[in-house]
Amino acid sequence: MQWLEQVKWDASGLVPVVAQERSSGDVLMFAWMDREALRLTAETRRATYYSRSRQRLWPKGESSGHVQEVHEIRLDCDNDVVLLKVTQHGHDPSIACHTGRHSCFFQRLEGAQWQPVEPVLKDPAAIYS
Amino acid sequence: MQWLEQVKWDASGLVPVVAQERSSGDVLMFAWMDREALRLTAETRRATYYSRSRQRLWPKGESSGHVQEVHEIRLDCDNDVVLLKVTQHGHDPSIACHTGRHSCFFQRLEGAQWQPVEPVLKDPAAIYS
Repeated sequence: MQWLEQVKWDASGLVPVVAQERSSGDVLMFAWMDREALRLTAETRRATYYSRSRQRLWPKGESSGHVQEVHEIRLDCDNDVVLLKVTQHGHDPSIACHTGRHSCFFQRLEGAQWQPVEPVLKDPAAIYS
Repeated sequence: MQWLEQVKWDASGLVPVVAQERSSGDVLMFAWMDREALRLTAETRRATYYSRSRQRLWPKGESSGHVQEVHEIRLDCDNDVVLLKVTQHGHDPSIACHTGRHSCFFQRLEGAQWQPVEPVLKDPAAIYS
């Protein structure tokens, strides 16, 4: 498929992906995709990433139930970064992070310290039980 | 500085960075930082990235004047991705992309084609003259 080949895959065959919540505008998480993950995401409108640690496809929410419905897939000016606009399902308020928080970007630099500034909405032990 | 060492730098000594416009919530761009870029960004509250193609520090706006004022620096759950909340200066409406568009993520997947869906706000030839 030509649109998949237009993406500039890195030396590992991956592309960085930013997931943004459509309703709030919040940046929820950052992950990677390979060709198959991006193809599946476009086809199913559910986010599938590629887990570099597990070296396999990672359908977001497969363990947690916190799936992402994909409304838009965007590509940047250099064709080497993808942005998803999503609805984060599975919990209200929405949880994208494996720590049970809304967003993975919950640590804010304050002075010379990273401070957690978002609450845990659900105990990870309960998410992944 | 301990907070800099808490970031998980990749094998090249870099970390991916997402810049989000504070006022609109729009994701403007994606780039990389090394330790010095992140240190300078925190110290000056102006975004400085690391250009992988030019292999040097890249103070955003050095040629274009489109500097980014940094309100927040966030770190994700794995300590390996940074999110900036910025005000994009230098043009109204704001331009973050070297193509003269508001955001670098101006291509949207429609069917099997990447379609540019944001206007060029200023001719790049005029930006970089």
